[in-house]
Amino acid sequence: MSKAKFYHAGCPVCVTAEQEIISLIGEDGVEVIHLGENKGKIGEAEKLGVKSVPALVTPTGNVLHINYGAGIEDLK
Amino acid sequence: MSKAKFYHAGCPVCVTAEQEIISLIGEDGVEVIHLGENKGKIGEAEKLGVKSVPALVTPTGNVLHINYGAGIEDLK
Repeated sequence: MSKAKFYHAGCPVCVTAEQEIISLIGEDGVEVIHLGENKGKIGEAEKLGVKSVPALVTPTGNVLHINYGAGIEDLK
Repeated sequence: MSKAKFYHAGCPVCVTAEQEIISLIGEDGVEVIHLGENKGKIGEAEKLGVKSVPALVTPTGNVLHINYGAGIEDLK
């Protein structure tokens, strides 16, 4: 995995975090996944260790949960 | 404020987050402040809206609380 992945669900706190993360890391360094619109990716996010959104999975596989938007169970 | 500020308190989750943030943003883009060793900065952190550590304050002033390490009250 060479890019960071940013999982979110479209909530206001997620959108702010997304804009900040992109402006800090750069658009080329992070793949943004909207789990509300793309529920098929929820399993992948869980496998990576995402417990809530917004969350940033780093290229080394660490999960940084940012603020607290929504528990992943609530998105299903 | 042109640099992001990363506040932490030396806990294991903070140190991991710090390494990840630095590798994503680059050392030149973020100032790291250890509130455990530098309690004089706690007031500054609170004024910026930091409620827990680790937290990243972006150049635009948004506070991204990462995971959940320690409440800022516990550091005093």
